[in-house]
Amino acid sequence: MSGDERSLDSRNLSPAMSSALARFRDGEVLALARAISIVEDERAGFEDLLHSVLAVGPSACRVGFTGPPGAGKSTLLAAAATSYRADEEHIGVIAVDPTSPYSGGALLGDRIRMNDLTTDPGIFIRSMATRGSLGGLATTTKEVLDLMDAFGFDRVLVETVGVGQIELEITAAADTVVVVLVPESGDAIQAMKAGLMEIADIFVVNKADRPGAARLAHELRQALHLKAGNTFKDMPAHHGVNLSRVLRGERTTEAVSPGGQTGWSIPVLTTVAQNGEGVPELLDAVETHRHWLAASGQLKARRRSRTRARVEDIVERELGRVARRSERAREVLESALDDIADRVETPYSVARRILDGLLR
Amino acid sequence: MSGDERSLDSRNLSPAMSSALARFRDGEVLALARAISIVEDERAGFEDLLHSVLAVGPSACRVGFTGPPGAGKSTLLAAAATSYRADEEHIGVIAVDPTSPYSGGALLGDRIRMNDLTTDPGIFIRSMATRGSLGGLATTTKEVLDLMDAFGFDRVLVETVGVGQIELEITAAADTVVVVLVPESGDAIQAMKAGLMEIADIFVVNKADRPGAARLAHELRQALHLKAGNTFKDMPAHHGVNLSRVLRGERTTEAVSPGGQTGWSIPVLTTVAQNGEGVPELLDAVETHRHWLAASGQLKARRRSRTRARVEDIVERELGRVARRSERAREVLESALDDIADRVETPYSVARRILDGLLR
Repeated sequence: MSGDERSLDSRNLSPAMSSALARFRDGEVLALARAISIVEDERAGFEDLLHSVLAVGPSACRVGFTGPPGAGKSTLLAAAATSYRADEEHIGVIAVDPTSPYSGGALLGDRIRMNDLTTDPGIFIRSMATRGSLGGLATTTKEVLDLMDAFGFDRVLVETVGVGQIELEITAAADTVVVVLVPESGDAIQAMKAGLMEIADIFVVNKADRPGAARLAHELRQALHLKAGNTFKDMPAHHGVNLSRVLRGERTTEAVSPGGQTGWSIPVLTTVAQNGEGVPELLDAVETHRHWLAASGQLKARRRSRTRARVEDIVERELGRVARRSERAREVLESALDDIADRVETPYSVARRILDGLLR
Repeated sequence: MSGDERSLDSRNLSPAMSSALARFRDGEVLALARAISIVEDERAGFEDLLHSVLAVGPSACRVGFTGPPGAGKSTLLAAAATSYRADEEHIGVIAVDPTSPYSGGALLGDRIRMNDLTTDPGIFIRSMATRGSLGGLATTTKEVLDLMDAFGFDRVLVETVGVGQIELEITAAADTVVVVLVPESGDAIQAMKAGLMEIADIFVVNKADRPGAARLAHELRQALHLKAGNTFKDMPAHHGVNLSRVLRGERTTEAVSPGGQTGWSIPVLTTVAQNGEGVPELLDAVETHRHWLAASGQLKARRRSRTRARVEDIVERELGRVARRSERAREVLESALDDIADRVETPYSVARRILDGLLR
C-alpha cells in the first residue's frame, strides 16, 4: 500500500530481513505482522528494519483514544473504525494494556468487542502485550505505530488504558488525542483531570445516556475555560516530548507553536458509543483538529518534537543494551561482588569503573 | 545510631554534602530526611553520598508489604510498627505509590492511618512521591531504603501498592515479602496470583472477619501446594534481579540457593489488622523467615543478587544521564532534524551517530 518515493537503505539487513521488508513494502499483511514481532522482540537488526521502513515517513492520521478503564474506549474506537471502513479507508489499530506483567492484561473484553471488525481484511488489529518491558513499552509501541504508518494505512488508531506515564507517552505519538470519560469515573477523574487536560485534543463523555453525563461535560468545559488563557501554550507542548524526563525536570517542555496566534479550542463531546450516538460528531471533530494541525503548522512541529524524543529514546535504549552485553562490564561486576559485600567497594564505585570502560 | 566500623571515603563530597553526611552519621533525623531528598532529586554528588553511606552496609531487617489497593497494607504495617516499637526497635517506613504522575497518589488515607505513629520519634516515615520518574522510581526507592538501613534503623518496612513491575522491583529489595490480600479482591487476585506467588515469602489474608476469607486462604494454600515441587527453585530467585529485564528475557533469573535442600514453605496467615488479630503470628512468621534466610545462606545470596542488579541499574541510569547532557549529542540531533523530516536520515541513523560519539 505504501508509496515508493525513494530507494531504501537496506544494506545492513540480513537476507531474511530484506525479504521481510520487500514483502512489507508489497503490502503483505503477514509481513507487517512479522515486522511488528521483530520490533516487539527487538530481534537482531530490528533497528535497521525500522530505519529502512522509516525512509517512507509518516502519512497516516494517528488518532489516540485514552481514558480510565471501563470508559468504553474500545467500543468508541470500534465505532470509529467501522465508520472509516465505510469510507473504504484502511485502518490499523493498536491496543496497549500496560498493566501487571503477570496479569496478561484485561484486553479480552476489548477483543470481543472488536470481533466484528477482525474478519474485515481492511483493518489490522494488534494488541501490545506488555511482557514487562518497563520503559521499553512506550518506545516499542511508537515503533509499531511507525510500522503501521509506513505500511500505508490511511489511519492508525491507538488505544491506551488509563493515564499513567507509559500511556501518556504513547498517546503523545498520536496527532489527535481523544480522552474518553464516563459519568461513573467520578472521583478518579478529579484526580486525573490535570493530566488529562494536558493531553486532550478532544474530550468525549461516553455513556452519555447515564446520569451525571451532562454535569461531567459541564465540569470539563468549565475546567477548560479556566485554563483557556494558557491552553495554547500548554496543550500541544507534550507532543513528542519524553514526559518522564519532563516530569523529572530533566528536560524543559518546549512550546512547539510556530506563531501562537491560532489556538485550538478543546471541544467536549458526548457519545453513546454502544448505539453510535455522537460518533459522527466525534469524527468531524477529529477531522477539524487534523485540518487545524496542518494549517497552523502544528502537525510539522509535533512531528519534529516527536522525532527529537525518539532519537533520545533510541540512544538510551541502545546504551542500556551495550552495558548489559559488555563482556568487560560483566567481568568487573562479578569480580567486585565480594569486595562490595566486604564494603571495600560499593555499587557506586564499581558502576563508575564500568562506565569509564564504556564511555569515551 | 549507625556503627562506625570503617572510615568513609568522602573525598568527592562537597563541603555541604560532607556536613550532611557527618550529621547523618551522628543520627540526626533531619540529616536523614535531607539525604533522602538529595537522593530523590538526584542532586549533584548524590551518588558520592550513597557511596559514602553504603560503606556501612546493610544490617536492618527489611520487610516489604505489597498487595492490591484496599487490602489494608498500611493498617497492617502500622500494627507491625507499633509492635516493634513496643520492643523499642527503631523503625523506618517507606510508602511508595507509583500511580499517575498527575494524581499525586492516594496516600492521604494511608497517612491518616499512620498518624498515631508519626509523633513517635522512634519511627521515621517517608512516602515516595513518584514525580514521574519512570524506571527511576524503583532504583531511587531502593537507594532510600539503603539510606534508612545505613542510618541504623533496626527494621525498615516498605509498602507498595499493587503488583506492577515497579512494585515488584522495589519489593525485591526487601528480605521478607509479605503479600496482603483481602476476600474482596476477588477476580483481580486470580489474575495476579501467578506474579504474587513468585514474590511472596508470606501470604496474609487480611480482613479475615469478612466472608470469603477462609476460602481465599484455602485457595492460596492449594495453589502453593500445587507448585510446591518447585517452590524453592522459583521463590527466592527474583530477589535482587532486575525483573524488567528478566521479563524481557534479557537476563536469566538465577537460582540463588546455595544447596537447594532447605526450602521455605510459604505460610498463609489470616489477620484482622484493624483490631490486631493475627498480627503477632505474622510477626512470628517474619522472624522465622528471617532466621531461615540467615541459616540457609539465602540472606547473603539475596544481597549478592541485589548488589548485582543495583550496579547494573546505576550504570544504566548514568548512561542515560550522560547522553542527555552531552553537548555534542544535542548538536548532532538538532542539526539532523530537518534531514529526518526530509527522510535523508531516520532517528535510527542519527542515534547511531550519537552513540558512536559517546561509546568507546
